[in-house]
Amino acid sequence: MKHTKIIDLINSTNFLHEVKAKGWVRTFRNNQFIALNDGSTIKNIQCVVDFENLPADLLKKIHTGAAISVTGTLVESKGAGQNVEIQVNNLEVLGEANPDEYPIQPKKHSLEFLREQAHLRVRTNAFGAIMRVRSVLSYAVHKYFQDKGFVYFNAPIITGSDAEGAGEMFRVTSLPLDNLPKKEDGSIDFSEDFFGKTTNLTVSGQLEAEAYAMALGQVYTFGPTFRAENSNTSRHLAEFWMIEPEVAFNNLDDNMDLAEDFIKYVIKYVLEKCEDDLQFLEERLLSEEKNKPQAERSDMSLLQKLNFVLENNFKRVSYTEAIDILKGCKPNKNKKFKYLINEWGADLQSEHERFLVEKHFKCPVILFDYPADIKAFYMRMNEDGKTVRAMDILFPGIGEIVGGSQREERYDKLVERMEAMGVDQEELWWYLETRKFGTATHSGFGLGFERLVLFVTGMTNIRDVIPFPRTPQNAEF
Amino acid sequence: MKHTKIIDLINSTNFLHEVKAKGWVRTFRNNQFIALNDGSTIKNIQCVVDFENLPADLLKKIHTGAAISVTGTLVESKGAGQNVEIQVNNLEVLGEANPDEYPIQPKKHSLEFLREQAHLRVRTNAFGAIMRVRSVLSYAVHKYFQDKGFVYFNAPIITGSDAEGAGEMFRVTSLPLDNLPKKEDGSIDFSEDFFGKTTNLTVSGQLEAEAYAMALGQVYTFGPTFRAENSNTSRHLAEFWMIEPEVAFNNLDDNMDLAEDFIKYVIKYVLEKCEDDLQFLEERLLSEEKNKPQAERSDMSLLQKLNFVLENNFKRVSYTEAIDILKGCKPNKNKKFKYLINEWGADLQSEHERFLVEKHFKCPVILFDYPADIKAFYMRMNEDGKTVRAMDILFPGIGEIVGGSQREERYDKLVERMEAMGVDQEELWWYLETRKFGTATHSGFGLGFERLVLFVTGMTNIRDVIPFPRTPQNAEF
Repeated sequence: MKHTKIIDLINSTNFLHEVKAKGWVRTFRNNQFIALNDGSTIKNIQCVVDFENLPADLLKKIHTGAAISVTGTLVESKGAGQNVEIQVNNLEVLGEANPDEYPIQPKKHSLEFLREQAHLRVRTNAFGAIMRVRSVLSYAVHKYFQDKGFVYFNAPIITGSDAEGAGEMFRVTSLPLDNLPKKEDGSIDFSEDFFGKTTNLTVSGQLEAEAYAMALGQVYTFGPTFRAENSNTSRHLAEFWMIEPEVAFNNLDDNMDLAEDFIKYVIKYVLEKCEDDLQFLEERLLSEEKNKPQAERSDMSLLQKLNFVLENNFKRVSYTEAIDILKGCKPNKNKKFKYLINEWGADLQSEHERFLVEKHFKCPVILFDYPADIKAFYMRMNEDGKTVRAMDILFPGIGEIVGGSQREERYDKLVERMEAMGVDQEELWWYLETRKFGTATHSGFGLGFERLVLFVTGMTNIRDVIPFPRTPQNAEF
Repeated sequence: MKHTKIIDLINSTNFLHEVKAKGWVRTFRNNQFIALNDGSTIKNIQCVVDFENLPADLLKKIHTGAAISVTGTLVESKGAGQNVEIQVNNLEVLGEANPDEYPIQPKKHSLEFLREQAHLRVRTNAFGAIMRVRSVLSYAVHKYFQDKGFVYFNAPIITGSDAEGAGEMFRVTSLPLDNLPKKEDGSIDFSEDFFGKTTNLTVSGQLEAEAYAMALGQVYTFGPTFRAENSNTSRHLAEFWMIEPEVAFNNLDDNMDLAEDFIKYVIKYVLEKCEDDLQFLEERLLSEEKNKPQAERSDMSLLQKLNFVLENNFKRVSYTEAIDILKGCKPNKNKKFKYLINEWGADLQSEHERFLVEKHFKCPVILFDYPADIKAFYMRMNEDGKTVRAMDILFPGIGEIVGGSQREERYDKLVERMEAMGVDQEELWWYLETRKFGTATHSGFGLGFERLVLFVTGMTNIRDVIPFPRTPQNAEF
């Protein structure tokens, strides 16, 4: 007899038939009630065993974490909080989990402890819920773009570029590090490396996405990107997944519309598809925050916060307006900011972004038209000659979740900026050619996927929303 | 006025209204007919200009590759092969493409030449079609698994593993190669590297996927994987995308069923969604093969071949049966094989796989139960003690497209195999723990995505089905 997934059993009303279920024991109470989970849903199915008729040595093997197979009769449950249960006729232990050794016991474990057990933490309610939400959110990303006719495109991970303007890069090599080939002048001979030159891990697929948008019109990437920056914070990973749409003929306003519509779509999608998991995460957050002082608690519950994003327009504010607000605000005047805002041109720090989003506007904010000096070379220069058509989307609790721009499509202006900012034109010959042959207005943005998952799940550390996080000093598993 | 995508204009019957289109000029005939493409479809829309009323210097700028914007009236077309056209009232050149410099002219370019122009080749019919098919195929992969309740999961790209059993690895480092930190004994001090130890690019997410399947039941990865092998062939890439489903409680038969069902689903999906692109690729292949001797031409057209896969069961053959067939076959007896098959235990080469698929069975073949000695440590040992529950799926023209197995779920047997094959148990402590705590039967496979795209598009070189291929001596763009 084939087993049935627990999610299907729980939603079944086909009572009094024999069913088989397989999964892992979450708890075993009174030598009688097994809560069984198979990962298909956060809900466990209750399996009622007749302990008087089961061999004692079999009963002894039923512990949290053990894999078992049960056959029995599906019946309506009299217990609270569940509709169905299995009255077990037959039980087989597939794999034991010695309670003296198994680290995941039915009690509260700290997130720090669970990070050390990344191969097992997904067996807990919280991480099961997070990873299911993450998966559905990924699918929503693809569905949104595909339904609109975007072409999914894989930017290269290994790149010959030394700098793409977005951050420090990891070197990729197949040379023997303890015996590097040398040229006559003593320098390393990279012509002997796998690709015949130095290569790095990509920090962004944007430049290649631009080339593809100039042929296919609407494209998007969704792949891993890397930063070799020693940022040991709750918001940074060395390896993270990024979504980068790029659209021919879109200007910055179209770009903002796309980003806002996209974010609302994927949040709406998970709200509809992940009700049970989000309900659990909402309760988890409430109970986490119980122990915090009132001032540090969220104004809204998780579901309220997600619905708030859906129901409200993102506030669009120019950088210049934002600076005016920040210059005049209390924490600036009272010198509560670590970096005081004195003049136009200052780069905004996380404290400023959070003030704007969480205290001033109290909603997601799109900042646009940044000073050219603090932004990348490929952003389109405004007529004022000092600001560029950049935009950042800032989210409460998360900070920057999207960074994008209208791209500089004018060949001469682009060359000028590359020269001014010391960007290698020879290396980017192909990028320049996209401005030489059939250039057109185009725009795009990058969204750090894990920051979105952080927002949607209400978690606070980015290491808890990716299966096996990569951070400084940590590449375990 | 907002522009409309060309695919929507072509499918429109809302005639005699003003429309705007933007795109790139494919051809310009008789100073009158512009074939305009915006990447939304392989089809061009014909734009008819009244050259007597357009300024001569504007007309001179209309060349293949130029980006233009046209407004005009959508009318039924009298021309052959198109339903609609635009009678242009207004034309704007957004970006020129000097015909003396622009490499992609309306003539036949060799695939080799186009590889050197990977940023522009996607502006051709063939590469536009390939990349749209690739995108829809990607989506079909997600849709298949998500509809079945699988959890999409991102395996780490940077791994602390030195060997995962699947091939040579690239080293990842942030150490300065020209000034490597040394320990007292003169060896490199990797504790100063970003992750505090040596790291590499993943060759497979399978081991991590197994850990996730042991919690979430059904999972799949779809991400980039890497091989630092100097394989300069038309079937190998140093960077390629792989799909790796892993399912708890599945045995090898279930695994074969899943793989066959999955492949048929995604092929059916693109046949339905990419009719125009596949039609073009079918004709392209026919015209390519016209110049070949009869014996080298395909028996079937592209669409016939795809439908053949849908309509026929994959032939399931044990390794032992396959060896018997090969030992007795003509090319073996006549010593036409480069590697002659003399005895049970021989590793099958591409020539043998192709014989079985293309000459003997003439359909996709699933080979299973391979000798343990030629397979990886994690495959489940059969009762005979000499074969493992491995399977490979072989496709005509492609060779191996899927490699999978039922995994060794028994702790003692796994340790035994790791010892015998010299696999580091300390490094894989977490993998071993999945067998220690709640182990169960499980199976999975890996499918090289580019080989699938190769099969579906009828292309013959794997470098032509990924946007920016990475191969020995090549990391351009």
